[in-house]
Amino acid sequence: MGSTTGPGTARTRDGRAGRPTLAVVGATGAVGGVILDLLSTRRNVYGEIRLVSSPGSAGRRLSVRGEPAEVVALAPEVFDGAAIAMFVVPDEVSAAWAPVAAARGAVVADDSNAFRMAPDVPLVVPEVNPDRVRDRPRGIVASPGCTTLAMIVALGALHRRYGLRELVVSSYQAASGAGQDGIDTLYAQMEKVGGDRALGNRAGDVRGAVGELGPFPAPLAMNVVPWAGSPAEGGWSSEELKIRDEVRKVLGAPDLRVSATCVRVPVVKAHSLSVHAVFRERVEQREAQAILAGSPGVVLCDNPELHEFPTPADVVGTDPTWAGRVRRSLDDPRALDLFLCGDNLRKGAALNTVQVAELIAAELTP
Amino acid sequence: MGSTTGPGTARTRDGRAGRPTLAVVGATGAVGGVILDLLSTRRNVYGEIRLVSSPGSAGRRLSVRGEPAEVVALAPEVFDGAAIAMFVVPDEVSAAWAPVAAARGAVVADDSNAFRMAPDVPLVVPEVNPDRVRDRPRGIVASPGCTTLAMIVALGALHRRYGLRELVVSSYQAASGAGQDGIDTLYAQMEKVGGDRALGNRAGDVRGAVGELGPFPAPLAMNVVPWAGSPAEGGWSSEELKIRDEVRKVLGAPDLRVSATCVRVPVVKAHSLSVHAVFRERVEQREAQAILAGSPGVVLCDNPELHEFPTPADVVGTDPTWAGRVRRSLDDPRALDLFLCGDNLRKGAALNTVQVAELIAAELTP
Ligand SMILES: NC(=O)c1ccc[n+]([C@@H]2O[C@H](COP(=O)([O-])OP(=O)(O)OC[C@H]3O[C@@H](n4cnc5c(N)ncnc54)[C@H](OP(=O)(O)O)[C@@H]3O)[C@@H](O)[C@H]2O)c1
Ligand SMILES: NC(=O)c1ccc[n+]([C@@H]2O[C@H](COP(=O)([O-])OP(=O)(O)OC[C@H]3O[C@@H](n4cnc5c(N)ncnc54)[C@H](OP(=O)(O)O)[C@@H]3O)[C@@H](O)[C@H]2O)c1
Repeated sequence: MGSTTGPGTARTRDGRAGRPTLAVVGATGAVGGVILDLLSTRRNVYGEIRLVSSPGSAGRRLSVRGEPAEVVALAPEVFDGAAIAMFVVPDEVSAAWAPVAAARGAVVADDSNAFRMAPDVPLVVPEVNPDRVRDRPRGIVASPGCTTLAMIVALGALHRRYGLRELVVSSYQAASGAGQDGIDTLYAQMEKVGGDRALGNRAGDVRGAVGELGPFPAPLAMNVVPWAGSPAEGGWSSEELKIRDEVRKVLGAPDLRVSATCVRVPVVKAHSLSVHAVFRERVEQREAQAILAGSPGVVLCDNPELHEFPTPADVVGTDPTWAGRVRRSLDDPRALDLFLCGDNLRKGAALNTVQVAELIAAELTP
Repeated sequence: MGSTTGPGTARTRDGRAGRPTLAVVGATGAVGGVILDLLSTRRNVYGEIRLVSSPGSAGRRLSVRGEPAEVVALAPEVFDGAAIAMFVVPDEVSAAWAPVAAARGAVVADDSNAFRMAPDVPLVVPEVNPDRVRDRPRGIVASPGCTTLAMIVALGALHRRYGLRELVVSSYQAASGAGQDGIDTLYAQMEKVGGDRALGNRAGDVRGAVGELGPFPAPLAMNVVPWAGSPAEGGWSSEELKIRDEVRKVLGAPDLRVSATCVRVPVVKAHSLSVHAVFRERVEQREAQAILAGSPGVVLCDNPELHEFPTPADVVGTDPTWAGRVRRSLDDPRALDLFLCGDNLRKGAALNTVQVAELIAAELTP
């Protein structure tokens, strides 16, 4: 240990022989809530835990590790003596405050998009590239976005064996990927259209009936929406290009060919992905299934004859990536098709951040 | 004209100089109902129209071309004097009765799966391979399934220009692809779970609340289900292999590489497809968009900045294939990604059958 560079080394931890102090910035948010759950149920590696939010939520009392804790407003001082800071806040808050935390000596585990593609910030998925966590010149470690995280653990395992060359991905993304506003909008739309048998038969019916579109560019209830993010070059969306960039960076495969199509579906939580992966080596269905079944963080659920395959309704609230429908292409012995599901608020956000912080804690604890 | 072979040539049409007599077998079904609508609104090319069903619906009075018509029970005699017979009935009914109709002199336009892959039965999509309709040694012409039909007109247009080599497809299939039972099941499930904010947050919640699964292997409301059809070799589903077989046959491309993943979504009508198509030649985004915009049967809807892309809710009840999200792959200048939507009961079933019958009628009418 002790090979870390830059700010955020062991000097600020909570007593030399003690456990590191942790700050959770964004503890009152959707991802923050899941983080508090995880901190309360996983192995306890921290000393003091400080819960931080905007001034608006300061003073709220939450519970972590079974004990009450009062939320404090974000300020430079909250990082004094903190060895690790998790950031689960909007991009612009991370952009402004993660460097402040790092300058005060905390190693930052950031869940936002602010630093993911920065060349001097590692993008870490503990099951795939844990060693990268040590090389953090700015004292900041980033986590990928929730769509990348829904597949990267499974892909990483297959990549180690077969060498990934190309990826064609179509997503079935949950409303909660667009935050609490997305969740609220989908429930409100479903309340309006659910069970109305007159709807869904003529163009415009659903559009006329769902009410507010919220963060989505079209009705989501009784519909699918092939757009997420903002417009980028060549007709691509920012979400689609993010997947390409993040997968390449995590796998250390800058030339990987990636075509992603992001589609929102009327599901509350858990993203699904239909993946066509082309490898350098010939793949075998049974072997690929065994690799997935044997990979930490992945559960194989692949008996379609018995109606066993992952669906969002069955995996929501669970930690792993669920893999099923594993098939070798009939026309290319080096290609695999598979279907993956994962909870976008757990491995897709809170869990990966917690795992990254645990890697850092292990390094800081003698 | 007059180059037809086998049974079902012009000898049985309704008077030498008159218009051909048509029998619609399955007129009381979901697809049958749309066929009656189309017959009532398109150019009138038929003489007599006979509506046929099982004995259970015989005697029902329906309306076609604005006139009442009584449904008769399926029997060999309903084909006497009929030049054309549309079959929109279950596979086994087509398998048993289409040869009877052909033997009595009617040319059969069959919508079922019974004859699609028979080597002596052409599989016809009028915008793509209209000439194949003439080569029908058994007097039977088949239509592809609804998932193939949701993409084949758009793909056919691009194939003519660029030469299709490989196809990776993920579907977003509507409940109505599983017939009236599928529609009823989805509405019933949505009535149970729509708007209930307690649901969708924990594994098993939705499964416990939706009630009957109907024709689906998992809950469909608030969920997506990566399975349609029956188990086939290597983990593939029958629906996925059908897409591969049908696209190859319609395009006359027996070596086309196809990987399809069929996923059911909680949409009542209209199938959507995310398509990654690799061509022999380099593609250009603008040119591909222009080809699609200029193809009969295709509407280009592709301005994501203005939130213009096809969604099931916007295309249901319309005839064309809607194409959007047209992008050239950033990593392969010969690959295009696009998103397609089409009403599975119109072009996906009734419309294609009606168009095939019109090709036959044009040939039979002097
Ligand atoms: N939702 C997902 O699927 C997902 C997946 C991966 C990554 N992420 C990322 O995770 C982060 C949080 O997402 P979320 O869904 O949890 O959002 P959220 O529910 O809106 O929560 C935002 C949190 O940030 C805090 N906050 C906002 N502005 C602040 C400020 N100026 N100073 C201090 N704290 C501030 C909020 O505190 P108050 O309570 O005081 O407002 C709240 O705790 C985002 O970067 C998001 O991109 C989300
Ligand atoms: N739904 C789709 O998206 C779709 C798409 C492409 C192709 N197709 C195909 O189209 C066909 C019809 O599908 P559908 O959804 O319209 O089914 P449906 O609603 O169940 O209708 C079936 C029709 O067949 C008739 N029929 C059933 N058994 C019969 C028998 N023994 N003799 C005579 N008629 C009989 C029924 O008459 P009664 O009223 O007397 O029962 C009814 O008119 C199927 O082959 C299906 O695979 C459907």
